[in-house]
Amino acid sequence: MRAFLSALFLASVSFASAQSRVDDLLSKMTLEEKIGQMTQVTLDVVLRPGVHIDTAKLKQALETYHVGSILNTAGHALSRDQWKELITDIQKEATGHTRLHIPVIYGIDAIHGVNYVLGATLFPQEIGQAATFNPELVRKAADITAYETRAAYIPWNFSPVLDLGKSPLWPRMYETYGEDPYLCKTMGAEAVKGYQGSVSGAIDKYHVAACMKHYLGYSYPLSGKDRTPAWIPDRYMREYFLPSFREAVKAGARTVMVNSSQINGVPVHASHYLLTDVLRGELGFDGVIVTDWQDIKYLHDRHHIAATQEDAVLMAINAGIDMSMVPYDFSFYTYLLDLVKTGKVSVARIDASVRRILRLKEELGLFALPVPHTEDYPDFGSEASRQVSLQAAEESITLLKNNNAALPLKTGARILVTGPTANTLRSVDGGWSYSWQGDVNDALGAGHATFLDALRKKLGSDHVVYADSLSDALSAAAGVDAIVLFLGESSYAENPGNIDDLDLPFEQLHLAAELAKTGKPVILVLAEGRPRIVTSADAVAAATLTVYYPGNEGGEALADILTGDVNPSGKLPFTYPRYANALVNYYRKFLENGNPDDQHGFHPLYEFGSGLSYTTFTYSHLRLSSPVLSGNGSLQVSVDVQNTGQREGKESVLLYTSQWYASISPDVKRLRAFRKIDLQPGETKTVTFALTPSDLAFIGDDNKPVTEPGQFTIRIGDQTVDFTYQSSRSAKPSEGRL
Amino acid sequence: MRAFLSALFLASVSFASAQSRVDDLLSKMTLEEKIGQMTQVTLDVVLRPGVHIDTAKLKQALETYHVGSILNTAGHALSRDQWKELITDIQKEATGHTRLHIPVIYGIDAIHGVNYVLGATLFPQEIGQAATFNPELVRKAADITAYETRAAYIPWNFSPVLDLGKSPLWPRMYETYGEDPYLCKTMGAEAVKGYQGSVSGAIDKYHVAACMKHYLGYSYPLSGKDRTPAWIPDRYMREYFLPSFREAVKAGARTVMVNSSQINGVPVHASHYLLTDVLRGELGFDGVIVTDWQDIKYLHDRHHIAATQEDAVLMAINAGIDMSMVPYDFSFYTYLLDLVKTGKVSVARIDASVRRILRLKEELGLFALPVPHTEDYPDFGSEASRQVSLQAAEESITLLKNNNAALPLKTGARILVTGPTANTLRSVDGGWSYSWQGDVNDALGAGHATFLDALRKKLGSDHVVYADSLSDALSAAAGVDAIVLFLGESSYAENPGNIDDLDLPFEQLHLAAELAKTGKPVILVLAEGRPRIVTSADAVAAATLTVYYPGNEGGEALADILTGDVNPSGKLPFTYPRYANALVNYYRKFLENGNPDDQHGFHPLYEFGSGLSYTTFTYSHLRLSSPVLSGNGSLQVSVDVQNTGQREGKESVLLYTSQWYASISPDVKRLRAFRKIDLQPGETKTVTFALTPSDLAFIGDDNKPVTEPGQFTIRIGDQTVDFTYQSSRSAKPSEGRL
Repeated sequence: MRAFLSALFLASVSFASAQSRVDDLLSKMTLEEKIGQMTQVTLDVVLRPGVHIDTAKLKQALETYHVGSILNTAGHALSRDQWKELITDIQKEATGHTRLHIPVIYGIDAIHGVNYVLGATLFPQEIGQAATFNPELVRKAADITAYETRAAYIPWNFSPVLDLGKSPLWPRMYETYGEDPYLCKTMGAEAVKGYQGSVSGAIDKYHVAACMKHYLGYSYPLSGKDRTPAWIPDRYMREYFLPSFREAVKAGARTVMVNSSQINGVPVHASHYLLTDVLRGELGFDGVIVTDWQDIKYLHDRHHIAATQEDAVLMAINAGIDMSMVPYDFSFYTYLLDLVKTGKVSVARIDASVRRILRLKEELGLFALPVPHTEDYPDFGSEASRQVSLQAAEESITLLKNNNAALPLKTGARILVTGPTANTLRSVDGGWSYSWQGDVNDALGAGHATFLDALRKKLGSDHVVYADSLSDALSAAAGVDAIVLFLGESSYAENPGNIDDLDLPFEQLHLAAELAKTGKPVILVLAEGRPRIVTSADAVAAATLTVYYPGNEGGEALADILTGDVNPSGKLPFTYPRYANALVNYYRKFLENGNPDDQHGFHPLYEFGSGLSYTTFTYSHLRLSSPVLSGNGSLQVSVDVQNTGQREGKESVLLYTSQWYASISPDVKRLRAFRKIDLQPGETKTVTFALTPSDLAFIGDDNKPVTEPGQFTIRIGDQTVDFTYQSSRSAKPSEGRL
Repeated sequence: MRAFLSALFLASVSFASAQSRVDDLLSKMTLEEKIGQMTQVTLDVVLRPGVHIDTAKLKQALETYHVGSILNTAGHALSRDQWKELITDIQKEATGHTRLHIPVIYGIDAIHGVNYVLGATLFPQEIGQAATFNPELVRKAADITAYETRAAYIPWNFSPVLDLGKSPLWPRMYETYGEDPYLCKTMGAEAVKGYQGSVSGAIDKYHVAACMKHYLGYSYPLSGKDRTPAWIPDRYMREYFLPSFREAVKAGARTVMVNSSQINGVPVHASHYLLTDVLRGELGFDGVIVTDWQDIKYLHDRHHIAATQEDAVLMAINAGIDMSMVPYDFSFYTYLLDLVKTGKVSVARIDASVRRILRLKEELGLFALPVPHTEDYPDFGSEASRQVSLQAAEESITLLKNNNAALPLKTGARILVTGPTANTLRSVDGGWSYSWQGDVNDALGAGHATFLDALRKKLGSDHVVYADSLSDALSAAAGVDAIVLFLGESSYAENPGNIDDLDLPFEQLHLAAELAKTGKPVILVLAEGRPRIVTSADAVAAATLTVYYPGNEGGEALADILTGDVNPSGKLPFTYPRYANALVNYYRKFLENGNPDDQHGFHPLYEFGSGLSYTTFTYSHLRLSSPVLSGNGSLQVSVDVQNTGQREGKESVLLYTSQWYASISPDVKRLRAFRKIDLQPGETKTVTFALTPSDLAFIGDDNKPVTEPGQFTIRIGDQTVDFTYQSSRSAKPSEGRL
């Protein structure tokens, strides 16, 4: 192998710059070679049984069809050695035996750690990372994920999901940073920075290309089901869904994957407006736009906007797609070749896409080093990385209710552990863990602790009784001090995670009701990807926590929190609904509050930002640098936060604004800033935020960002203060950070 | 009273035409008098205790504030004599004592019969009328309603509701003609014609002015709750929600009431685009635009788009409002007067609205005869009218399931009647019956039959056992041949009808489950305003019927159907969902079908158009006049329908089209025509429809109607046939009937 690597290294030094290499290559490429670069197939296309490369198939893909990209795993997670063999075989063929020696770019979904590589560090899913309200942790997790992805010889990560987690019905909600646009864009940008390590230019060998998913408006289908149509007016597309992508582009995200569904009847894969006018034109994105799975074909098969498969390719390319995740065959190549030859697609259009793809490969150093050196990654799956995952899990776990200080458990307490999510890694890691559906987590994640495992380890097996049936649990309850009841969901991903009823299954709620009748305090732990309706169970619980899908260290993290060794600090990144047909986000309109006497107004089970601590925090002296914000000035907002309890604790300080009146009906409140602090008992810290007019912008009547003069209220904790914004005639119109 | 009527009659003959009277009046009016015409207050404002006019309050309203319109009832339904006294007092003051003798226009919600007048004929609610698929019946019901409204001295009816009944969660769904745009526009236009009796010019003394409600996009709030925000892109506003209003304008509807909520952040009461550009400009509507209850105030209080109440008035008037349903005070008058005096609103703008209001009064003959002659309405509440209501109820009741011919009941059968909706007129008439919430139906509707009453009358009391508790029902079941179980909803209207969970309450489903265990066949009758989830109850029922809210003759109609004296012919005007979070309309997109192996695709409990008969119908020979539809031509579509059962029956023949591919993702299918026929046993009828390109139009990429060339499938019953549409270069672009 060394031979061909050396050849490439020599080749690379002969180019003065990345740009000149790309231009030079492009000038030498045949049309067929160019279109091949735009073609992405799944690993299965080049495999033979036993997860080995089928050389004939690989040659067909790389030499006959000039394929430029391969993705995916082979059904489930592989070892680093297996990845090394696969990637080496692929790159050897690509760089050694194709005419122009262009390396393949391999892509994978490493969405909470490099989840398709055995032994990798798995972090909480994005929804849990959001709950930490700790951007630095998100960045660290992404940085480690990038390192471990490269350690598995893969340079391109289809992450982060930047979709707004606005609908609890949507089965991918756990893959998001939650329902708030500010939280989503803040965490998303950190992830991009963590993955890539650089905002522009070369990406070093410890980092990967990020991929913004799934542009745009994917997360809010009318029906709640994955990949079904959304109705999103342009105003709200820009107000709520676009900001996370805008911020990620600013953070340098190199690639983007497209929403498989349709917005207002237009499949996004065929939307020139969204892909070219907005993404390239307005956001200034010049990276690679890749389709999602089979999505050009689906323009014909599912969306019915293309009468033929060739028309589908034409529509997608004209809309702005650079690369097709075909992924099972070479039909895209054949159709596109025909379209160029018949003049329906110009060579210039092809060149634009191929240039982006080659530049990406160049920035990732693939020409210089198509297969990383194993010895460069000694920290793969290290204890240090595990500690970061553990901290993320600890900071994500959200204590929603704690009646009569039911938690932490008393020293020496004996507990009953029961419930369907107590003893399976499916509910610890969720989907996209070892396999797409996470259905082999218990086998391939063996060695990691389930919640039960961790509690046994922490408390001692003699202090933990486990029951996996209602009758056993009822019998065992008499002998314990508390019942830790694990409800929620197993693992799932995408379409198979669709549900028709948000209520948790009757059997689970029944279990809670029956256990509560024992009179023993019930500690309700929710391990789930989305807020399933648990109202009746929560009502009888002494304490309620949600752990989301906390990742491989989630068991230990929960045990640390239940025992009080760690003080919980997570806050809900979504509104936890009370009923299955009462799904309203916190940034509702005033109309959605309902009348004061309305039983059906906004009254979720737990509001966005909820989360208790074992200590108490007191907010005071919310104050402003001025009662008036003018022009393009800045307002300093300060508040004192004191730890008024008995132990150290972390607190996420959330700043909301509310505009009193605006030309477009304003949201009741919107998160504009947050900061997580750590306080010793009795300690007070002053937290200061700067607000500028663009922080207050919304999408106005002309669908452009605007900050309108008027009265505003700032809310932090239980404190409020008002100010006035006055626009200045001489000031430059607000750009708006939306 | 005769004296002032004569005076008015004499006055009226001195004008050559309505137009000249309007112009003459306008030229004489002070600004104050004009603004008063634009002001509408509720009856309570001019009442004293005992439901009598308070003369001082009336003088204040009509003389000080020049109020032009009054609405509403006094808490609940009144007798014709009471209405005569009230209206006479009002008109005597208006025409006798105001400077220009302009009559008041009185408006009321007579939405399924003149429901606020004692002794009136009450019809099925709109949703039931839609289920008849019989436009002639809808027109007859509206004609009778108009007559009886005039018989109660009232000339203006706030009906029909033209909102698309697209969301089962919305508490006003029963007020709609269901989920289909074609059904909605067809029935709505018939109602307008029935109410008004004329498309233009004078409306005779047996008819009233109709009011299209509630323009536009009111029925599909994101949260499902009444008067909460909707996200509706312009394309779908035009595709689904606008057609019923367009058709009603063509049918001559004289007035329109505005959606209280907001679309894409813009309250419709402040939308110049929707009220003026689209409604007046595109649809050519030149009638009166009236607000809904307090909705100008709410631009400030609820929508937060107006910083002051005066701004709210300015916004609404500038958007295009003609009349404000203030309705509790005269603040609108005061603000608007100030706005004109300070030059913010022009006199020309005021004149335009006042001209429309005066013209409406003139067209209704109010100047000539402000109070109708009692003796002109001998048929108020007549047996003939009752028969029309009975027929409408019979044709609305929809048989969804009939295992093993469980229905009709065997002659001499003994039945158990039970369930919460069996013995209350609240579930027969629904809301908007005798009172807003329908909560006094049993008292004020006394004499009309509940379902139980009607079954006792029909079968004989000795054949009917009634139980109002589960235990009584279980005891009684042993002695009967069948159990008729009445589930569903009590009465409600608007916001108080909001729900957080579409599931029918647990107690009702439990009742069904327990009764099924008796082994006796359960006939499940659903009396409800919207399709609540009844999946588990339906699963154990031998037969299932929905009666919607069938109106005062609903009990008799149901008894006729259960016994087989009448053969059911209703069809579902909505998709009956299977689960609370599986809410998809039949005109879904292909994406919403789900994969073939998908447990969560489109699989409602009962699809739109479902409805069984006691006989069977066989469809055959679906055929076309040509395999090609060209240019602006027409296609004849014929199908043979045979009654292949043993008894006469009515069948609604529904024609759907499906476009294979279109530039905007096409709906799976769309209803384009229907016809209800009556067939004797063995009889065959050929039903022929004409399809034109405009019937196939959808809203294209430029948000304008377009009919695109391509392949189509027509579906009628179980028959399908394909054709091709070819556009003609010389043809005028399709106007589109959307």
